[in-house]
Amino acid sequence: MSEATITRGLEGVIAGETAVCSVEQGQLIYRGYEIHDLAENATFEETAFLLLEGHKPTPDQLRRFTDEVIAERPISQSVINFLRDVRPNLKAGTAVPMDVLRTGVSILAHEDKDCQDNSPAANLRKSKRLLAKIPTIIGHMQTFLDGRDLVDPKTGGDPKLTHAANLLYLMTGEKPTAEAAHVMDVSLILYAEHDYNASTFTSRVIAGTLSDLHGAVTGAIAALKGPLHGGANEAAMEMLAEIRKDIGPANQPDKINAWMDNAFTTKRKLMGFGHRVYKNGDHRAPILHGLGRQLAAQKGDSYVKLFELGEHVQKIMLDKKNIHPNVDFPCGMTYFTMGIPVPQYTPIFVASRITGWAAHIMEQHANNRLIRPIAKYVGPAITPWNK
Amino acid sequence: MSEATITRGLEGVIAGETAVCSVEQGQLIYRGYEIHDLAENATFEETAFLLLEGHKPTPDQLRRFTDEVIAERPISQSVINFLRDVRPNLKAGTAVPMDVLRTGVSILAHEDKDCQDNSPAANLRKSKRLLAKIPTIIGHMQTFLDGRDLVDPKTGGDPKLTHAANLLYLMTGEKPTAEAAHVMDVSLILYAEHDYNASTFTSRVIAGTLSDLHGAVTGAIAALKGPLHGGANEAAMEMLAEIRKDIGPANQPDKINAWMDNAFTTKRKLMGFGHRVYKNGDHRAPILHGLGRQLAAQKGDSYVKLFELGEHVQKIMLDKKNIHPNVDFPCGMTYFTMGIPVPQYTPIFVASRITGWAAHIMEQHANNRLIRPIAKYVGPAITPWNK
Repeated sequence: MSEATITRGLEGVIAGETAVCSVEQGQLIYRGYEIHDLAENATFEETAFLLLEGHKPTPDQLRRFTDEVIAERPISQSVINFLRDVRPNLKAGTAVPMDVLRTGVSILAHEDKDCQDNSPAANLRKSKRLLAKIPTIIGHMQTFLDGRDLVDPKTGGDPKLTHAANLLYLMTGEKPTAEAAHVMDVSLILYAEHDYNASTFTSRVIAGTLSDLHGAVTGAIAALKGPLHGGANEAAMEMLAEIRKDIGPANQPDKINAWMDNAFTTKRKLMGFGHRVYKNGDHRAPILHGLGRQLAAQKGDSYVKLFELGEHVQKIMLDKKNIHPNVDFPCGMTYFTMGIPVPQYTPIFVASRITGWAAHIMEQHANNRLIRPIAKYVGPAITPWNK
Repeated sequence: MSEATITRGLEGVIAGETAVCSVEQGQLIYRGYEIHDLAENATFEETAFLLLEGHKPTPDQLRRFTDEVIAERPISQSVINFLRDVRPNLKAGTAVPMDVLRTGVSILAHEDKDCQDNSPAANLRKSKRLLAKIPTIIGHMQTFLDGRDLVDPKTGGDPKLTHAANLLYLMTGEKPTAEAAHVMDVSLILYAEHDYNASTFTSRVIAGTLSDLHGAVTGAIAALKGPLHGGANEAAMEMLAEIRKDIGPANQPDKINAWMDNAFTTKRKLMGFGHRVYKNGDHRAPILHGLGRQLAAQKGDSYVKLFELGEHVQKIMLDKKNIHPNVDFPCGMTYFTMGIPVPQYTPIFVASRITGWAAHIMEQHANNRLIRPIAKYVGPAITPWNK
């Protein structure tokens, strides 16, 4: 190969095919359905079925799928003990929730009778179990952090709660309002799948060695954590909180402008903006922004002011840098408005993206080829060890 | 991009640069030193220093490095408890040692004060800790499986033991012979690094989101497990054991030929053969084959017969398919000769490759670009959800 073919970060390189998702400038498609259509007309459960099973469910299929997932919501005492015992590390900051969720999923593998079986049927069963249990891990982790009593997802929980409502219930111990549950549901639809993004690509590289689904998901969680990927929703909210702290709550335009000018001058990386594939804006961002803003209007003035600050920052980014927000930017403001602790934003992303990852892992296993690129050596020339 | 540019499995695609390693048809180089030279003249500790610190150590540097690593050999009671409690899952086969090692490393993250710090200094400190603690995880896991008392790597262990000898000691509870320790040492040198192989590439994709080193290593362990990658050393030995079982211990050539003919006819994938990059043979394989065979000669006739069987199988693969063995093929026979349980062969690979992974993660963080390819959509055309 000539040197001209080096593509740093594989930008624009087609690494393979997929029937799961199309990310294009013009639209985002999950298995033939466009994202605005899904956000408006489908539920997260229907979207999860679509991604995992490959087609839109009939009412009967959806009922069975939902029942199966609900039955798998409880987690073992081993995982509960781990979540209890890791609390001091979370408090001390050596661990963050994304790390704990990664370990939790890695432990779930050991207890899954299908763990070593890469067949399509076993992979599907494992995917549904992970879809069901990830919200419980997140919820129990947060409950231990808050020092509250665990909500047992089987006996204490409400089996009729949707994936989105159950996630909020397990995290807070309180049933969410219909509006909050709806906004969470749509955010999960938007986060479910995005073709060869870094975490999904990680899961495919792992699955491509014919390693197992739990391992591939564990690696994907590690990748999603990064602030250049899923971690951006936390980083975006942290940045807005920092601006608020620096300029006060009044959203004075000159102060926002000065803050942004300083950020540009110091070449600070502003989180929640830009996208490797979308150059003319992320289709998902306006959908979530609109819903989050509605919720903010219900919750009170300080939340509306947060969105106004975000809108001002967005406008400056567009005017001065021609960079649009990605979905993580409104997500940060929306989850903040819902009262969710910032370090749980990316774990919630996992509670959705597990569907996309699992769909890709199954697709990789079904038609596998080891993913193994080559590298250009730029190290020292050969020297004898003893000279 | 045109359709012509799709490269399944990224075969031949240069995904980036590295100063750590060069994998070429003619030679394998770690930071300027050729693999035969290292295998003959360097120790694993020197190789680890070379990979992690970027240059050959002075005697003083090597002493400090070795002392630092030895001091980090003990693992916390949390990880020990996990290894004790997961024993039933290992016995039941829902978990395998590679999965348990993945979880063990994931738990180590939570206790590491540097976990969230991606700076070069913190990454180096974390790398040395993982290098030190991974053999302890493997050793304790095997000790629990065998129902023996743990060897405390601090008080019960011998701090003068090399990485290779300590690994064998922790696994077996007995100090290895000088010959066994030497063969293990060389196998660790051979396994330490191999540019953009699937697990290292996984670790770079994860690190490329600016996620942390422990997460990247956790994902890399998941990738190495696969039988198309590190898991091949276990798979190769399992295949040889199966041939022995089928044809008896006498290595009758006609029976071996018939077994292989049947494997070719049924299109069975034979493990430990071929390599994505090396088409004319893996440089590492003959080095380990020679050492393993010497050890077999010391250990007795049945081990020599195992190598003879392997050599016969190799010859058939070369004559009939023109495919050479890779390093995993002699590794399986060599570790078997050393009395190591087969499911620990790939974890031992981790005890070495952690150095290469860490070097690549540090290189990725030092000059980062998100690794995010694109995909060709081959799914259904757009349909309305409600039609």
